[in-house]
Amino acid sequence: MNQKNLDLCKGLVKSSYIDQATQATSQYNKLVESLLTQRRLPDQGWSDKVIELFLEQVSMMDSNNFVENIGVGEREGRVFSGLVQKRHYGLSHGIGRSGDINEQQPKAAGSSLIQKLTNYLVLDAMKIAGFESDTIPSCLVLPMATGMTLALTMATLAQQKPQAKYVLWPRIDQKSCLKSIATAGLVPVPIENIVVGDLIKTNMDAIQEKISQLGRENILCIFSTTSCFAPRAPDDIVSISKLCKQENIAHIINNAYGIQDSKIVHNINQSCRQGRVDAFIQSTDKNFMVPVGGAIVASPNKDFIQAIGKNYPGRANGSPILDLFITLLSMGKDIWKTLLDSRKSLLPYFTESLTTLAKEFNERLLDTVSENKISFGITLSNLKTSTPPSLIGSKLFSRSCSGSRVIDLSSNKKNTVANIEFNNYGSHTDHYPPGSYLTIACAIGIEKQEIDIFIQRLRLVLKKELS
Amino acid sequence: MNQKNLDLCKGLVKSSYIDQATQATSQYNKLVESLLTQRRLPDQGWSDKVIELFLEQVSMMDSNNFVENIGVGEREGRVFSGLVQKRHYGLSHGIGRSGDINEQQPKAAGSSLIQKLTNYLVLDAMKIAGFESDTIPSCLVLPMATGMTLALTMATLAQQKPQAKYVLWPRIDQKSCLKSIATAGLVPVPIENIVVGDLIKTNMDAIQEKISQLGRENILCIFSTTSCFAPRAPDDIVSISKLCKQENIAHIINNAYGIQDSKIVHNINQSCRQGRVDAFIQSTDKNFMVPVGGAIVASPNKDFIQAIGKNYPGRANGSPILDLFITLLSMGKDIWKTLLDSRKSLLPYFTESLTTLAKEFNERLLDTVSENKISFGITLSNLKTSTPPSLIGSKLFSRSCSGSRVIDLSSNKKNTVANIEFNNYGSHTDHYPPGSYLTIACAIGIEKQEIDIFIQRLRLVLKKELS
Amino acid sequence: MNQKNLDLCKGLVKSSYIDQATQATSQYNKLVESLLTQRRLPDQGWSDKVIELFLEQVSMMDSNNFVENIGVGEREGRVFSGLVQKRHYGLSHGIGRSGDINEQQPKAAGSSLIQKLTNYLVLDAMKIAGFESDTIPSCLVLPMATGMTLALTMATLAQQKPQAKYVLWPRIDQKSCLKSIATAGLVPVPIENIVVGDLIKTNMDAIQEKISQLGRENILCIFSTTSCFAPRAPDDIVSISKLCKQENIAHIINNAYGIQDSKIVHNINQSCRQGRVDAFIQSTDKNFMVPVGGAIVASPNKDFIQAIGKNYPGRANGSPILDLFITLLSMGKDIWKTLLDSRKSLLPYFTESLTTLAKEFNERLLDTVSENKISFGITLSNLKTSTPPSLIGSKLFSRSCSGSRVIDLSSNKKNTVANIEFNNYGSHTDHYPPGSYLTIACAIGIEKQEIDIFIQRLRLVLKKELS
Amino acid sequence: MNQKNLDLCKGLVKSSYIDQATQATSQYNKLVESLLTQRRLPDQGWSDKVIELFLEQVSMMDSNNFVENIGVGEREGRVFSGLVQKRHYGLSHGIGRSGDINEQQPKAAGSSLIQKLTNYLVLDAMKIAGFESDTIPSCLVLPMATGMTLALTMATLAQQKPQAKYVLWPRIDQKSCLKSIATAGLVPVPIENIVVGDLIKTNMDAIQEKISQLGRENILCIFSTTSCFAPRAPDDIVSISKLCKQENIAHIINNAYGIQDSKIVHNINQSCRQGRVDAFIQSTDKNFMVPVGGAIVASPNKDFIQAIGKNYPGRANGSPILDLFITLLSMGKDIWKTLLDSRKSLLPYFTESLTTLAKEFNERLLDTVSENKISFGITLSNLKTSTPPSLIGSKLFSRSCSGSRVIDLSSNKKNTVANIEFNNYGSHTDHYPPGSYLTIACAIGIEKQEIDIFIQRLRLVLKKELS
Repeated sequence: MNQKNLDLCKGLVKSSYIDQATQATSQYNKLVESLLTQRRLPDQGWSDKVIELFLEQVSMMDSNNFVENIGVGEREGRVFSGLVQKRHYGLSHGIGRSGDINEQQPKAAGSSLIQKLTNYLVLDAMKIAGFESDTIPSCLVLPMATGMTLALTMATLAQQKPQAKYVLWPRIDQKSCLKSIATAGLVPVPIENIVVGDLIKTNMDAIQEKISQLGRENILCIFSTTSCFAPRAPDDIVSISKLCKQENIAHIINNAYGIQDSKIVHNINQSCRQGRVDAFIQSTDKNFMVPVGGAIVASPNKDFIQAIGKNYPGRANGSPILDLFITLLSMGKDIWKTLLDSRKSLLPYFTESLTTLAKEFNERLLDTVSENKISFGITLSNLKTSTPPSLIGSKLFSRSCSGSRVIDLSSNKKNTVANIEFNNYGSHTDHYPPGSYLTIACAIGIEKQEIDIFIQRLRLVLKKELS
Repeated sequence: MNQKNLDLCKGLVKSSYIDQATQATSQYNKLVESLLTQRRLPDQGWSDKVIELFLEQVSMMDSNNFVENIGVGEREGRVFSGLVQKRHYGLSHGIGRSGDINEQQPKAAGSSLIQKLTNYLVLDAMKIAGFESDTIPSCLVLPMATGMTLALTMATLAQQKPQAKYVLWPRIDQKSCLKSIATAGLVPVPIENIVVGDLIKTNMDAIQEKISQLGRENILCIFSTTSCFAPRAPDDIVSISKLCKQENIAHIINNAYGIQDSKIVHNINQSCRQGRVDAFIQSTDKNFMVPVGGAIVASPNKDFIQAIGKNYPGRANGSPILDLFITLLSMGKDIWKTLLDSRKSLLPYFTESLTTLAKEFNERLLDTVSENKISFGITLSNLKTSTPPSLIGSKLFSRSCSGSRVIDLSSNKKNTVANIEFNNYGSHTDHYPPGSYLTIACAIGIEKQEIDIFIQRLRLVLKKELS
Repeated sequence: MNQKNLDLCKGLVKSSYIDQATQATSQYNKLVESLLTQRRLPDQGWSDKVIELFLEQVSMMDSNNFVENIGVGEREGRVFSGLVQKRHYGLSHGIGRSGDINEQQPKAAGSSLIQKLTNYLVLDAMKIAGFESDTIPSCLVLPMATGMTLALTMATLAQQKPQAKYVLWPRIDQKSCLKSIATAGLVPVPIENIVVGDLIKTNMDAIQEKISQLGRENILCIFSTTSCFAPRAPDDIVSISKLCKQENIAHIINNAYGIQDSKIVHNINQSCRQGRVDAFIQSTDKNFMVPVGGAIVASPNKDFIQAIGKNYPGRANGSPILDLFITLLSMGKDIWKTLLDSRKSLLPYFTESLTTLAKEFNERLLDTVSENKISFGITLSNLKTSTPPSLIGSKLFSRSCSGSRVIDLSSNKKNTVANIEFNNYGSHTDHYPPGSYLTIACAIGIEKQEIDIFIQRLRLVLKKELS
Repeated sequence: MNQKNLDLCKGLVKSSYIDQATQATSQYNKLVESLLTQRRLPDQGWSDKVIELFLEQVSMMDSNNFVENIGVGEREGRVFSGLVQKRHYGLSHGIGRSGDINEQQPKAAGSSLIQKLTNYLVLDAMKIAGFESDTIPSCLVLPMATGMTLALTMATLAQQKPQAKYVLWPRIDQKSCLKSIATAGLVPVPIENIVVGDLIKTNMDAIQEKISQLGRENILCIFSTTSCFAPRAPDDIVSISKLCKQENIAHIINNAYGIQDSKIVHNINQSCRQGRVDAFIQSTDKNFMVPVGGAIVASPNKDFIQAIGKNYPGRANGSPILDLFITLLSMGKDIWKTLLDSRKSLLPYFTESLTTLAKEFNERLLDTVSENKISFGITLSNLKTSTPPSLIGSKLFSRSCSGSRVIDLSSNKKNTVANIEFNNYGSHTDHYPPGSYLTIACAIGIEKQEIDIFIQRLRLVLKKELS
């Protein structure tokens, strides 16, 4: 309530009580003031109640919620269902304008405000996670998942170098990466990885060679990947960045869930300082525990971020931004740090538990943890002859363990994705000597108790299926 | 947002858009101002969005929601479950203080404000329904249903006339009425009604006689009933009031769902003007379409209302008051009037439909509609010998028709309630010549379509069970 | 979804995915089954999502939510406002029937189910807190706060011994206790306490003497109090119970927030075993962290609990029961135990912090902690002459510390409550030698961080106001 | 509850009440069954309560909500904030898989089910609006607004005809249309419209000529527009379709808000039957009153719809699909038809009101209503010399009228959009003889009362600004 109405309350409730309430209202207003001026994660997360009050107030700034609003246009933010209106706090105009996804809506000052603030909060959260100021002078939060965002990013690059059709792509067996290149109307050029011990690593020589072969003027960019399933290592982005700088080729990093890994963050900082990085893209859901649907494009180059924003045609859905906004306000700096720290500290616990378990069954943890700090795997060398490797995965799933993946290398399967044929698709390489394996991840939000229960359930499954 | 924060938004969103949003915020503030100053139903109901924003703001005035609150008492309004907190908008201190249910809570200025405003809104809604200003100079909304509220009202009366134990009670066969007398530690004295045509009416002579017999000094009050199931008519409260005035005996009216009936309202006005009425009690759910749990005590005597408030020991649940507050804001004057008018105008439609249906089966509408404007009935004279009357009721209920009641007068049953034995309990009289019947009500909120479907379903039931 | 519909989903979504989902549905069904059969707190609390699904399903069992329902009665559970409906999950019929608050509603099987289950869960939670099976064979959860519930309990007692008007009441300076006696139409007979060291204790001799004086046949009951503000100790209920048994006088214990104190619980067990306890009443909000509005009447005597239920006239609001139901499901056994343990273990931390602080200012912790395990106090002996004691309280409140109370014994004030005059009302005794003091409580739900901040704020206040 | 648990309830609540509740549960199950088997809008909309119960049940089918779920992958649908989880009903896995946005998620059977059902419901709603079965054998609901969806559609077309870079584009001055072509990496070729009377119409000759000039093999498609701001008419899509068929050029129709206009729908049917239409794209928010963020791609060619789905890289946000799902279930067939009919019938009311108003000020309604059935305009010929036309728009906006647009043709402005220079951008043509004007729309969801208030407010504005 504004001061005038608070004063009017004194006609109804004792003056001294209202004075106290007024003071409380100003505690709330100070929280908001601090958000609007500092534009950083609050030190301590806001309560749900405070968040909802703020959202109710902000959404009143959108024209469709004006008490006296009359809409005589073709798009007036009318919402038929009360359930739908409620779940969006009355925000219905989305974000952006026809010209630019970053442009503010005259009809929707509230939505515009949330979009702006979310950008600031994301930047702050990324800095807390280790990104340096020069690495991320600005970012763009898009209401599209990483695949489509990668496509838009490359499409924007393509407008700047229209003749260059090729995208050099160190193989990563995740379909949407490859498809994003095709969606942008470009031609993916796979670079086969090399196997070193248990690790699958970037083949820098092959990249260099391919540049010579195709001609740098025909290459739009190198598309590298950091966070990925073991036994693949994150790409050697520092070397790639240096090469890109030297060859004057753009460099896009798919950093889907890399914000949570301080080593990857460090490497991105290095890459931006020492080489060329045009953009790095991360998933909102995989890093910030929101529902699927958003991505963050960041870049050391502010202008390129702007260009992407301007290349987005029309308005967009504001829901993923709202999710992120609520989440970051709710986490605050404290819990965000705790989540990052907790994931990091559970990693050795998880891999040790798995090492112990693997030993019980004469299997072993793949030796990849030095490089890949999120995903890791154990061998599946001693399966009963009657047990196809994939059965381990489906048995785990039917025991309510989701997210583990079995790579069956027992036969030499071929797959075609985006018109390219791959051997052993899913394993990131044509031939992986250690054979079939099971991968697991230690991702943000996981809890110790989950690890313990997973190990128990995996033990039961292995007991039955290993000879 | 307050003006300062709105201005700060201009650092993030275009100044002109924020100016527009500021204007919208002030539209909202004007709604609130109007509520706080006029304290009447808004002409048009508030949207859910506006209501929720207001509740979020008001609840921030309660200490348990202060951003910086520390609670070191034994009752600090802590709420464990987020679901529970949300459903009460963070309001958890209830209403009242140990001394008086109407007293304001220092810890809960917001809850106190809602209680106060609800009182005003209820008074306004009752005036719109026809109550005159002198009839209801004040009222008390209690978070207890009518039965317990009647008990508290009589207990308060009893403190003023401690030796008087008797309550004269024109028979109304609804258990909680009778029990409320016993709960208050008093002795009910039933007054048998008289049957006139199809109607069951107040026996004024019997009341007069009972007063003489017991002695007015031993009689605490007469407990009359307005809204009731046909074929009972509302009590002749005008005559009772005059008698009470003349005999200096208190008069309590159970007006459970009488607000919706303008004839009853008119009679209460008359009674207050010409006779003695100490209090009349109405249900919140039966009149205002909120969940069960509240009652309104009104009186032409302000002091008595205050005495009841002071007699309530301790705090009370605020939930029924909140329901009423939300509902009245949401209805506004417009819809509240429409609901009253619509019920009134559907009454002839319903009774005509029922008359027609009854004729089809050689039954008839009981001739009570001139007096009882809410409940009415049809005879059940031609049931198959194998069909007990109650079967009609249970068949209707199993066809998802709730609320109809069958009174089976085929045998002469005796029941004991609160230690008093009754003949044909449920029919309000020892002997009702027209025999068994089915009652139905045309209550607030009913829709034409419901009437049509009910008639259809009833026809199907009667077809099978009437000979 | 039921099995048939799950199977139909296979026409839309892959059969194996639906099979997995079916299995998940049955995990949920097993939770429900376990609740319905074991009727105890779940070992681990249910998630909000599971609770809401369950409530949505249960509320579909109430007739007002039947898809095909037609209501033709005077009370059909119609809810005007979507906000109101939502916040009650569509439950609108309240609880109880006219005859008995414990009776089931034919129109509201779902509400009835929740009421029943809540009773079982409360019994289980109380047993976990230490109550023995013989102490609580049954209980009644009422949607009224403790004051009104005490009144109803005594009113029910009074029906069994109508001539006995006196209630012996060891003085406890909390208005609603005293007023509950008056509301029930009874006469409170205060028993002045005795001061022993810093403690204010039950005067057993005075009770005994008063019984002789008034005659046991004229005494309805002794009304004792456990949980209370320091420096008053919980009444010596074991001695009182023995006396009641010996004198054949009823005994009602006001155990408002005593469930959280294992010592009080132990004493209630002892009292029930060795003496006479007719009922003990506890607040739902003070013990279970729900909004104000409910109370639990328990008794070793099942029949008396039933009698109270039957004495409640009419239906009642279901909201406080729903709050408790949600809360207990959400807590589960684990968290409920943790909350009890945590409060207990924070008590020494709090009193030690306070002792240290008091020393800084030449004040001292009142020596009451051996007896009163929830509330405690420090002296206010060295206030500046310009500082009235009450200023400490209001300064704390304006610093967002709620719940501390200052008892100003600097002048000898007289107050009249329920027509009885008291010296130094608020201090539980006519004369308390240690002088003015500040009380604070360590109540369930308090967190260590709150204690630390409170101590800081109190230090700042004392610094200014102590000489 | 399943049958077993319902039966278990009989241990707690009377058997006959539970039987009744079981019957009610089966009424609900029948609604669901009907949805799953008929896959059409329910005849009558579902209540919010039923919708929420269904969503709670369906979301339990997603693995992140399994009671016993353990997530050990990199994306486990964890949701940090309870507010976020609640607003998505626990659905967090989005839609689609890396390979195909239409593919089902093994981890998310519930989300997949909703996506599938939404597709069916949208098809049904479109058929009710007049689309013939052959026009829409299938559709794709994408969680991107129309601009980005148009880009994806053209990018998909481009993969089939990689050498063709040109998109013939009858000028429509709405930025996102033009930009969508550029985003897809294609070259827009504007076709200037012709002015006929007040109408701005498709220049078929110019299109024909441009095809000859550029060569059909170099033209990817014609991009036509139906719903648009007056005085532009919907493009002559029937002629364009015939031409496309004849020239073997693809045809994409931007039908942003055309579902609500039966004439446009009719023309699309005709176009599909008589000519070539590859896809027509419509906004979800502009037609179905949901928040901005979704679009529907439809096509008479099922394979092309599939190709677009497969071209979408990765998962996507499920929120816009959920909004649509809730909305269509809530509307039902009845209200959807009523909304369409009501808009249609308010059009003459609105234009007549405007005609009358215009006359008052010596202005006139532009004569475009015979062709454009949604948007219309009035001339602004008599403005005071001191009044720039745009002032009318901003004055209306500051009077809380949103959506009207002023086209200021008083000077001959030039704008560059997507590197193309336009005269009088916003007016769809280089030169519009009637001069400056104000446009207004009669869009779905508008109410008579809104029209009346708008006319009042416009009158006040014009009074001041017209000479």
